[in-house]
Amino acid sequence: MDIAELCKAAKAAKYELQTLTTAKKNEVLTEVSKVLLDNSEHILLENAHDIAAATSKGLSIALIDRLRLNEERIAAMAEGLVQITHLPDPIGEVMETFERPNGLKIEKCRVPLGVIGIIYEARPNVTVDAFGLCFKSGNAVILKGGSDAIHSNTVISSCIRQALKNCGVTEDALCFVEATDRETALQLMQMSDDIDVLIPRGGAGLIRSVVENSRIPVIETGTGNCHIYIDDSADLKMAKEIIINAKTQRIGVCNACESLVVHEAVKETILKEVAAALQEKRVEIRGDEATVDLLACKAATEEDFGREYLDLIISVKTVASIDEAIAHINRYNTGHSECIITQDVQHAERFLNEVDAACVYVNASTRFTDGYEFGFGAEIGISTQMLHARGPMGLRELTSYKYKVRGNGQIRK
Amino acid sequence: MDIAELCKAAKAAKYELQTLTTAKKNEVLTEVSKVLLDNSEHILLENAHDIAAATSKGLSIALIDRLRLNEERIAAMAEGLVQITHLPDPIGEVMETFERPNGLKIEKCRVPLGVIGIIYEARPNVTVDAFGLCFKSGNAVILKGGSDAIHSNTVISSCIRQALKNCGVTEDALCFVEATDRETALQLMQMSDDIDVLIPRGGAGLIRSVVENSRIPVIETGTGNCHIYIDDSADLKMAKEIIINAKTQRIGVCNACESLVVHEAVKETILKEVAAALQEKRVEIRGDEATVDLLACKAATEEDFGREYLDLIISVKTVASIDEAIAHINRYNTGHSECIITQDVQHAERFLNEVDAACVYVNASTRFTDGYEFGFGAEIGISTQMLHARGPMGLRELTSYKYKVRGNGQIRK
Repeated sequence: MDIAELCKAAKAAKYELQTLTTAKKNEVLTEVSKVLLDNSEHILLENAHDIAAATSKGLSIALIDRLRLNEERIAAMAEGLVQITHLPDPIGEVMETFERPNGLKIEKCRVPLGVIGIIYEARPNVTVDAFGLCFKSGNAVILKGGSDAIHSNTVISSCIRQALKNCGVTEDALCFVEATDRETALQLMQMSDDIDVLIPRGGAGLIRSVVENSRIPVIETGTGNCHIYIDDSADLKMAKEIIINAKTQRIGVCNACESLVVHEAVKETILKEVAAALQEKRVEIRGDEATVDLLACKAATEEDFGREYLDLIISVKTVASIDEAIAHINRYNTGHSECIITQDVQHAERFLNEVDAACVYVNASTRFTDGYEFGFGAEIGISTQMLHARGPMGLRELTSYKYKVRGNGQIRK
Repeated sequence: MDIAELCKAAKAAKYELQTLTTAKKNEVLTEVSKVLLDNSEHILLENAHDIAAATSKGLSIALIDRLRLNEERIAAMAEGLVQITHLPDPIGEVMETFERPNGLKIEKCRVPLGVIGIIYEARPNVTVDAFGLCFKSGNAVILKGGSDAIHSNTVISSCIRQALKNCGVTEDALCFVEATDRETALQLMQMSDDIDVLIPRGGAGLIRSVVENSRIPVIETGTGNCHIYIDDSADLKMAKEIIINAKTQRIGVCNACESLVVHEAVKETILKEVAAALQEKRVEIRGDEATVDLLACKAATEEDFGREYLDLIISVKTVASIDEAIAHINRYNTGHSECIITQDVQHAERFLNEVDAACVYVNASTRFTDGYEFGFGAEIGISTQMLHARGPMGLRELTSYKYKVRGNGQIRK
């Protein structure tokens, strides 16, 4: 099927999906879970083709690991769908009601976005996760994965479509793009008549390409140049624990800490100890002049302060005041997650109010920016833009609304 | 100032604006109102340059009328600002609070979008309206108007910046783009590091150009191919009143009715009378085969059903069922405003649930899709997209949110 036909099919499906009952949606999700488990042998066989191709192409061990499926990972994908059945259905919620002086009764009701396009890279589990979240929130989804996972994604998509069919629901709730070339991706990004929203999931290059080329509204996710500011009133032990956690608990993720901002009054005390703890965890420190003087570490360039390392590297900037800290963070951050460690309530409130980011923390690790940690029960990504949704996006963030207006003959004067 | 500097100035201003008190914002709005009135002579002089140029260019009378200012229109712009001072300030509202099992306290708080870019055409009043709404909602605004209004917009912008200065608030809360060429507009659309959202206000050509070229998230507004469906249970008198109102009360607006869908059971009765009433108002009818047979009117082409006429023309489609009506509307509508006229409660509910549009009406004119009519007190436009905001956009729709997370040393396991 070519892209235009595929998009038309997804658009036709969205009208059916927006009126599905919660029970029916949960039935489908449960059935998908079952079909995946029943077909795990077949899925592993197809996955082995991808792994073999990736190996002969010389992809990195980390990439191959992301690509690899096994019984356990298939079980986890299936279990993820079952968990989605337990989440409340956002669709149909009446968000507000109001009556106008002329008697019009207006209801603001939550509805699906419609058709969501997802362009992603080499993680086959995204095929299942993205379908599950989009489907539960009443959306049709068009999935375009990377070439490295094409065999795995194809068989997983077939399983999902089979399960939809088994339940008597349109298979086009999931439309899978078989082509993996860049031209097809570009073509997809032009289909604004049929696709309501595009969500890229993957590295910075993929996201940039989508933002630059899409004619469809995009939700930008992912990039996190997250800072922790050690205020002059910070508690040493807390600072050390939070920073080690935020920097080293998992380094390749968008909510990991990439930069420290330190009040100069505590550089001799807290920074020294934090630096020692970081170095013990083999984290390379790149500091400004004062930090280099103090620690004899590598010097940070201007570029370092804007970097999302996703690696065992951290930049350090010393400041003379909380004002300078806030200005530095607002200059370099990516609107993801920012933290102050402080015992000063006024400084905490200023930081919360004045730092511009999706999630601003007082005395807690930036690693909590996550749909599960926030209690949303699921996550399609972390939005770093201002429009529509900001921060962790769960089911509710995959919805829009409509106004239902009930009258009895009102006309405008 | 070149575009890059202008955008940097607006971005710097946004941090100051997001912490302004409501009282201060209202003080500024009142001051702007005063400065505009004090300078009305100067504004009219500059406006006269625009009018002279437009006249010698041979612009249409309608366009010149939109461009023209007089004492009364300046007073109306000033009064509009005073009205905005009376609206509740959306910023700082705590939208939700929740506590996680680990003790993290999370608050979802309403914040400004940041920097809003507005690209508009030849209405000088947009300069004042857009500033007023963006400013009250804590945003910095970059305005780029059309060349036809350049003298008027320049002097109005200077008045606004003077008022900001008089109140001790950064003048860059309003950044005005002096260049009016297309290249500058294209350059503006690339400034995604500095501008958070772009809202085009104007005709279909302008909106298409912004959607196609912008790298900044766009809110698409305006196009309305609005339908009214006359159900087989419709009340004749109500149908006639609503349709005449929706089609003819004001023809050049996006919430005007452009197409009738009629159940075939009532074509001999209701459609005939409605058509006569429309023709009395000099509305040209373009119908499908059954309508042409009935009324001997002009035949509608496929293209007619997708047209937003903004003129004394209406298309008519007959259908055999409400299903067919809903399918027709979902195929041709632009996601703006759709109406059913019916006495059948089940048909009303099906229409409300199944027609995909920002505003769906039962027994009321589509002309009510409007920020003032909805009680929002103001309007920056009508969104026809799914992301962020749908339908009339008031102050609240010019905001985003952030999560404030308060901990006492929590780290992720």
